[in-house]
Amino acid sequence: MRRRRAAREGASRGTEAARVALLARRLGVPGASGIDVGIGDDGAVLAPVDASLVWTIDAQVDGTHFRLDWLGWEDVGWRSFMAAASDLAAMGATPIAALSALALSDAVDDAALDALARGQAEAARAVSAPVVGGNLARGRETSITTTLLGRAERPVLRGGARAGDGVYLAGVVGMAALGLAALQRGARLDDPSVAACVGAWRRPRALVDLGLALPGRASAATDVSDGLARDAGHLAEASAVTLVFDADLLSRRSSGGALERASALLGRDLLDAVLYGGGEDYALLATSPSPLAGFDRVGAVEAGGPGVALLRGDGARALLDPRGFDHFG
Amino acid sequence: MRRRRAAREGASRGTEAARVALLARRLGVPGASGIDVGIGDDGAVLAPVDASLVWTIDAQVDGTHFRLDWLGWEDVGWRSFMAAASDLAAMGATPIAALSALALSDAVDDAALDALARGQAEAARAVSAPVVGGNLARGRETSITTTLLGRAERPVLRGGARAGDGVYLAGVVGMAALGLAALQRGARLDDPSVAACVGAWRRPRALVDLGLALPGRASAATDVSDGLARDAGHLAEASAVTLVFDADLLSRRSSGGALERASALLGRDLLDAVLYGGGEDYALLATSPSPLAGFDRVGAVEAGGPGVALLRGDGARALLDPRGFDHFG
Repeated sequence: MRRRRAAREGASRGTEAARVALLARRLGVPGASGIDVGIGDDGAVLAPVDASLVWTIDAQVDGTHFRLDWLGWEDVGWRSFMAAASDLAAMGATPIAALSALALSDAVDDAALDALARGQAEAARAVSAPVVGGNLARGRETSITTTLLGRAERPVLRGGARAGDGVYLAGVVGMAALGLAALQRGARLDDPSVAACVGAWRRPRALVDLGLALPGRASAATDVSDGLARDAGHLAEASAVTLVFDADLLSRRSSGGALERASALLGRDLLDAVLYGGGEDYALLATSPSPLAGFDRVGAVEAGGPGVALLRGDGARALLDPRGFDHFG
Repeated sequence: MRRRRAAREGASRGTEAARVALLARRLGVPGASGIDVGIGDDGAVLAPVDASLVWTIDAQVDGTHFRLDWLGWEDVGWRSFMAAASDLAAMGATPIAALSALALSDAVDDAALDALARGQAEAARAVSAPVVGGNLARGRETSITTTLLGRAERPVLRGGARAGDGVYLAGVVGMAALGLAALQRGARLDDPSVAACVGAWRRPRALVDLGLALPGRASAATDVSDGLARDAGHLAEASAVTLVFDADLLSRRSSGGALERASALLGRDLLDAVLYGGGEDYALLATSPSPLAGFDRVGAVEAGGPGVALLRGDGARALLDPRGFDHFG
């Protein structure tokens, strides 16, 4: 955690030092296994790792990825961490540790920073990957950039899907986008199913444990962070195959709960919400020749393409436009 | 390299995909040793590393850390990378690879992005650490956040300085700040020594090779990124000692060249420029019981403190204010 160029930024060293100390207090995990040096030196030092290293970075920018009228600072900290952790889940990696680079506008006072760090720390505990360092900078715009390192004996990539594999999905898809839409429209927020969707958007959870079922079984995987159709398109493209979703299987796993009720209340077609409803639930999409623990089968891989198709119950089949954006959003 | 939420950001997928492809073209290093998966999957995958991992992150924000009226986009790419690499140099680590998270304002067109990536790639080649992934986001404010991983058998920390050690310095200190000051004042830019200072500010070089002399020899080290007095203060604090700089030794290594001439032309005291002149040269400061290859002895470590002192040729001794900011900047 550096205080680089704090002087030139016009902040007093006392304040900057106090902020670093605050972050170290909230985020520090003394004696965490595998962490030789945490916050406070030029860099963090991790003990050697006898497996492949899986490494990712994700940025959440105020106004682009979050809006503070709808989120508390703890939520912002939590979700910025989970967005990065989800990439490790998708590759079947076990998180080791994280670094956090904060660009803070003058609107972020010490109480806000403390809440942000609490949210990060809570998420870090939830996936057992402490924040071991970072960077503190001033900006006109607040952003949180999180990098995570994980370990995996056999990381799962996007490019291994084969014709004949099943398509599998873990986690709910579409609730977060419905929650965001409800907030944007100020609609039906008192309904419990809509409130559950808002909760899903505020506090997504990277499916790290489910991801550990992937190595050695799944032929390919990715997390759903841009929307199911779109991320399926990425996987199909990397594997040069066509992913065919079964509409009945997709609908069945999405029905009877808050997702179905909220989509009805908000006037959105359930299947449309699932396929195009954004990605901020951080579900996992995988292909595999055999069932995957914790995943539901929702389709099949076919040769040709690349592309993504939807097979309806009446046998009708439509190619999905992977560019289809969230016109509901 | 993700395209996360590009649709919601309003940019066409084509454009976003083209930008990721552009970055992959500029930054990709097919077949680089130790890199199993580079740009294009959920995360990068590195081969196992049989040493401690040294890990750092640094952010450069438009308007805070750089100004585009004085820098080209290639320079911005280069210096953002070197700022992060310098942390690894300070710990005596060998860089392995980097991830780059870009938040781009609408002002960054494809030509600018291409130049930025060229600068990053050039710096990555200079320290043999390819960019193997990242994140692309839209923001109102452009920023470049770079995380680097390195390996070290025995990383050097800030906290090991002992009374009786010598204080050592590698690399020039103060030129970059003089260059920035000249740009800010529009002063003497045609003079070769001032131009050299401007060049030092635009294209700093992390002293990675010199850093490799530290493990097993230096008792403590840090890079000079906030200014010599200030970073010496950090090291002194971590080690609970007093660092005493010898004014004659400091002046001698700074005289007879562009630094001395530029400081005279710009009306700044040479020693003041060295001690308080900002840190964007990315010199290395170390303590050691014995000489360090490539480093000059500039002082001694004493018990007590923590603090930083200056010993003048006439025997006068002054405690330095580590908070002393760059009142010239």
